[in-house]
Amino acid sequence: MSAAVYYGPRDIRVENVVKPTLEESTDAVVRVTHTAVCGSDLWFYRGKTDRDIPSRVGHEPMGIVEEVGDDVQSVDVGDRVFAPFKISCGMCEFCRRGLHTSCVNGDGWGDDNGGAQGEVIRCRHADGTLVRVPDAYANDDSALRSILPLTDVMGTGHHAAVSAGVSAGSTCVVVGDGAVGLCGVLAARRLGAARIVAVGHHPDRLSLASEFGATDTVSARGQEAIETVQEMTGGGAEHVLECVGATSAMETAVEVCRPGGTVGYVGVPHGLDDGLDLFSFFGDNITLQGGVAPVRAYADELLADVLQGTLDPAPVFTKTVDLDSISEGYQAMDERDAIKVLVEI
Amino acid sequence: MSAAVYYGPRDIRVENVVKPTLEESTDAVVRVTHTAVCGSDLWFYRGKTDRDIPSRVGHEPMGIVEEVGDDVQSVDVGDRVFAPFKISCGMCEFCRRGLHTSCVNGDGWGDDNGGAQGEVIRCRHADGTLVRVPDAYANDDSALRSILPLTDVMGTGHHAAVSAGVSAGSTCVVVGDGAVGLCGVLAARRLGAARIVAVGHHPDRLSLASEFGATDTVSARGQEAIETVQEMTGGGAEHVLECVGATSAMETAVEVCRPGGTVGYVGVPHGLDDGLDLFSFFGDNITLQGGVAPVRAYADELLADVLQGTLDPAPVFTKTVDLDSISEGYQAMDERDAIKVLVEI
Repeated sequence: MSAAVYYGPRDIRVENVVKPTLEESTDAVVRVTHTAVCGSDLWFYRGKTDRDIPSRVGHEPMGIVEEVGDDVQSVDVGDRVFAPFKISCGMCEFCRRGLHTSCVNGDGWGDDNGGAQGEVIRCRHADGTLVRVPDAYANDDSALRSILPLTDVMGTGHHAAVSAGVSAGSTCVVVGDGAVGLCGVLAARRLGAARIVAVGHHPDRLSLASEFGATDTVSARGQEAIETVQEMTGGGAEHVLECVGATSAMETAVEVCRPGGTVGYVGVPHGLDDGLDLFSFFGDNITLQGGVAPVRAYADELLADVLQGTLDPAPVFTKTVDLDSISEGYQAMDERDAIKVLVEI
Repeated sequence: MSAAVYYGPRDIRVENVVKPTLEESTDAVVRVTHTAVCGSDLWFYRGKTDRDIPSRVGHEPMGIVEEVGDDVQSVDVGDRVFAPFKISCGMCEFCRRGLHTSCVNGDGWGDDNGGAQGEVIRCRHADGTLVRVPDAYANDDSALRSILPLTDVMGTGHHAAVSAGVSAGSTCVVVGDGAVGLCGVLAARRLGAARIVAVGHHPDRLSLASEFGATDTVSARGQEAIETVQEMTGGGAEHVLECVGATSAMETAVEVCRPGGTVGYVGVPHGLDDGLDLFSFFGDNITLQGGVAPVRAYADELLADVLQGTLDPAPVFTKTVDLDSISEGYQAMDERDAIKVLVEI
């Protein structure tokens, strides 16, 4: 089978690899039909973080179940399913409390199970990990495009909003206009926020933020962004979604947070090499809540909304490629020509 | 009048200074009878943080009201009062929501109002700042020793517990066996924690922690402390009180926090010069909540408990000096010969 393989910065190749097969009775083998390139993939693509060379990549799989182990109960051969970026058992203390990313039996996608940017994956703990798409939508390509972001960015944006404590009537600020930030806007609107200020610096993305429900957009960075938002909100918002993961974004987030407020953060903190300056949080009792998003915990409720037509993150996909052209997808993300790239396999 | 003045590292002098007087109609002038030396004073005393030379010091005043401005309603001449380490107006958005440390009219103690380690202070915003001790206890020296910690450390320990989300039945870990950590133990017990693990490295202080309600004590640092607590708690506690403010303590705190749990932090983050490594928080969705403690918000409820005899932080005072000998008090704190020093004026 074919799969994307990382060979070093800006070097993604599609190679013939061994197809994964069932190994345990709780496994499912899934033929991937849709996947995506993630903003977090850019960290290794740009050489900013280490990664084994060669190594299998991708962590946002959707497809059709091809084979199931004897103990798998929730999905069957032929079912349309998707999986979050983390495998989780669904039965441990942390899965039961909705923190699937801390699953004691958890795992990621990679060499040993196929990597989600490939034709076939082996999903451990299929019952705890896979989410079944109702048959009525199983071959509805439009619906599938809207569902695919639930594998990562939509759940992550939602986690930012939940972590920031957004609720009906809230004023919130979303820092970052990438796919996660845009999904954060959708999530904040879905949770009933009355005012949503989106901060970024790409006019096209901020325009999409407005379509998604942002009531205000700020196209600026650093001190200019901070002052603008401070003025708009009369001293900051109680709920701030940090959807980037870089030092500068975290600094902006805390500065636009009202004293006693909460920064919900979901951006992988790769850029915080120098560490986080805690003084800005300390003096005004600003809470820092969030982390890697337990997307599986949110999948069912978000899926219900997508299927009802009240939530549609599909517009974050501004480019579609096939697996053979996936390196073009990475390049478009790297050059910010695409917000997020869908990969059809 | 006399007051303690900072002249550089390990150089505290008692000098004759100008007595502060009423300046605004909302001021009160208070003759200080009791004050204290704070762990946070050690930062400048040891030369670890900058401070003007010379400058007035002290921020934990208790005394008798000597004069009040025309607009002061809540206290009168002759009343026994104490004040938190921050002045607050009591009327702004942040005071009304219990975040007095972010008061828009707030201030600290220092040169312009006397400094709390001195004979007389001028308290701006007397109605918002001063807490009146009921007359029945106004001259009860034993009660006053128990009330004095409400100016800072008891409220700060309570803020750590509240920020960490401690509630009835909780398991929590208190990192730090200084006065704030010990008050954190008292606060956790008061909030109904079922299990309180105190982590420190001074046998006498850990012994006091046990008296205060710690169910377990761990006398160790770093990795040894982490492993011991991890084992005791079966993988960490959901509520961790970080009561030190140094990098090593924060690292211990996050490592003994259960995934999805909360670190309530109140230690002034002076030691975090290199910044906080966010990865340990990110991966397991550990919330960081707290900051500078809004002691004024907690004063009334804690005072009620002290007066009822169900809360008594007085044992944190292990040494008493008079104002002329205050430098001995600093020295005892610096050398860890005293947990906390009470200064009788």
